[in-house]
Amino acid sequence: MPRTTEGAVGARPTIRDIARVAGVSKASVSYALNDLPGVSEETRARIRATATELGWRPSAAARSLSRARAGAVGLAVARDVHLLEEEPYYMRFIAGMESVLAREGLSLLLSVVPDVDAAVEVLRDWWGERRVDGVVLTDLRVEDPRVALVTELGIPCALRAGIDDRMPDGAQLALSVETERQSFVEVVDHLVAQGHRRLARVAGPREFLHTRRRDIAWAEVTRSALGRAAPVVVADYTSAGGLAATRELLAGARPPTAVVYDNDVMAAAVVAERASLGVRVPEDLAVVAGEDSMLCRLASPAISCLHRDVVADGARSARLLLEVVLGRSSEVSVTEPHRLVVRGTTAPGAPAAPAAGG
Amino acid sequence: MPRTTEGAVGARPTIRDIARVAGVSKASVSYALNDLPGVSEETRARIRATATELGWRPSAAARSLSRARAGAVGLAVARDVHLLEEEPYYMRFIAGMESVLAREGLSLLLSVVPDVDAAVEVLRDWWGERRVDGVVLTDLRVEDPRVALVTELGIPCALRAGIDDRMPDGAQLALSVETERQSFVEVVDHLVAQGHRRLARVAGPREFLHTRRRDIAWAEVTRSALGRAAPVVVADYTSAGGLAATRELLAGARPPTAVVYDNDVMAAAVVAERASLGVRVPEDLAVVAGEDSMLCRLASPAISCLHRDVVADGARSARLLLEVVLGRSSEVSVTEPHRLVVRGTTAPGAPAAPAAGG
Repeated sequence: MPRTTEGAVGARPTIRDIARVAGVSKASVSYALNDLPGVSEETRARIRATATELGWRPSAAARSLSRARAGAVGLAVARDVHLLEEEPYYMRFIAGMESVLAREGLSLLLSVVPDVDAAVEVLRDWWGERRVDGVVLTDLRVEDPRVALVTELGIPCALRAGIDDRMPDGAQLALSVETERQSFVEVVDHLVAQGHRRLARVAGPREFLHTRRRDIAWAEVTRSALGRAAPVVVADYTSAGGLAATRELLAGARPPTAVVYDNDVMAAAVVAERASLGVRVPEDLAVVAGEDSMLCRLASPAISCLHRDVVADGARSARLLLEVVLGRSSEVSVTEPHRLVVRGTTAPGAPAAPAAGG
Repeated sequence: MPRTTEGAVGARPTIRDIARVAGVSKASVSYALNDLPGVSEETRARIRATATELGWRPSAAARSLSRARAGAVGLAVARDVHLLEEEPYYMRFIAGMESVLAREGLSLLLSVVPDVDAAVEVLRDWWGERRVDGVVLTDLRVEDPRVALVTELGIPCALRAGIDDRMPDGAQLALSVETERQSFVEVVDHLVAQGHRRLARVAGPREFLHTRRRDIAWAEVTRSALGRAAPVVVADYTSAGGLAATRELLAGARPPTAVVYDNDVMAAAVVAERASLGVRVPEDLAVVAGEDSMLCRLASPAISCLHRDVVADGARSARLLLEVVLGRSSEVSVTEPHRLVVRGTTAPGAPAAPAAGG
């Protein structure tokens, strides 16, 4: 094995560095340093000399991962293609995952399937064919069959869940704990400070676990701020769905003066169609988007939103998954809450209707 | 081998169907039908009986692909993460690829890297480690080192190129031939019919092969329609870059009355910032985006654009790649041209300035 040196933190050479200096592929370096066939003895000796020279020492991760069967982790995205079309979310999440996987020489196996049942089939095949060492699950459903599958087969798995979501015992799960409540406190405080008393929320589909978590947090936070839980209308994340839900709210006996949307597309549709909805934004209706994106930044007025670093989320999920692959049975990390970004759709000084509020 | 039956076209059962009926994994079906170890003799017999019953027969593709080493194709996206954030393009392209790969039981290996040199390293590792049977290249650069790599190593490869782009001999390339010229003819005809004579284009970076193709097509089409080639300013696909390029054009001696942008983000930024640019859209400046997206549809006014079916493009690339993997050395398919979608930013009747035009 290469000499163990006390290299400075941050200066530790990677397999890629060694490959570059030795003029060979990363695969060859991996074979040479892990005593695997695949390189000549001469090349092996040269690679080891280079590694020693650069002060390389195998990390715990590298040692264990070199024994892993697949050298890849899987992500099966269960989303309708037409919804994906509007969602920059996944490419950012994937880019974050890749930033961690690339350092360990691991690949990402990706599948885009229409629903969770198809995802279950993909995950089962990947695991059965030894194509992945673990998987990342996103967009968890209530009673998600993918969680049952990874538990049944013992597949190392990273997912995001609320601290109160029930997860099966014995599973090799890495949890990123979501904190919807804090984000809603920021939004509601901001709107109440502007004089709003009639708030409402347009939610995503209730099949998603995160919608259920948001429902609970929204009820708690608005009850605490306003004395009773503010209403929620369920929609489907699309522009058409967001518009229909907003029309329903505006036609009610006590129309809201501020609406919080569970994503960016629904909020952007409402801002674009405000004339046909018969409202001025923000004068008659304040709008907050639940995700940030170019749609929010380029809307006119630009849309206030809950912003999160999705690239960092992807990196965190990959890191946690690798810990579980390495044999730690239960890793937990608390994610950053969404941060409120105030833009034109909740401009301070907007004349809400406090007299009519309650 | 299973009995060859003359099943109706469209009713041919897939490995997935057989797995479902037999109550086993797709992997088991594949092992059983391809005489590979991995299933018991009892299971093998049951799977073959089910396959026969369903009228299954191995396709040429299935026969060859079952002998392929990796069972996966690779896509190494070479893009800055911050640009990807704004681009729904890739998820749609990937979804299209998956629709073809899933039918053949193939996986997609994905890597997101910052530049083509990093992509070359990834592709070399994938091929060296037998992780992929072929690769899809996107965003080709002028003198792209990835094309040199796949040629050198004989990696089956699908890519999009113009009919005049020089591609290396002997490579296992599947070409989707791009047709920028026809798209620009539609756009320029539309703008000229509205009275515009001063056109301009804000281009993407010239390192991209498709930018160079568009440069040539734009010069030809505008020269043919207006007597001389309309000007081009190069930008970087970002909002800031699009705005700066537009300011440069508007400050010139002969400011354009209509600008065509190479993507959606730059066009949407100009529409959002039209007040600070000192123009009305479309009265003073008509705007056309080179790609369609939610940004174009939700802008106000909604943005006229060149629309294409990116999901179909992804499916086409995957299909062509599989043909090459199966041993056909040179597959070519002509892609659909972008189709002009007229929206508010080039509204008919917009008062352009024909008197001042040339």
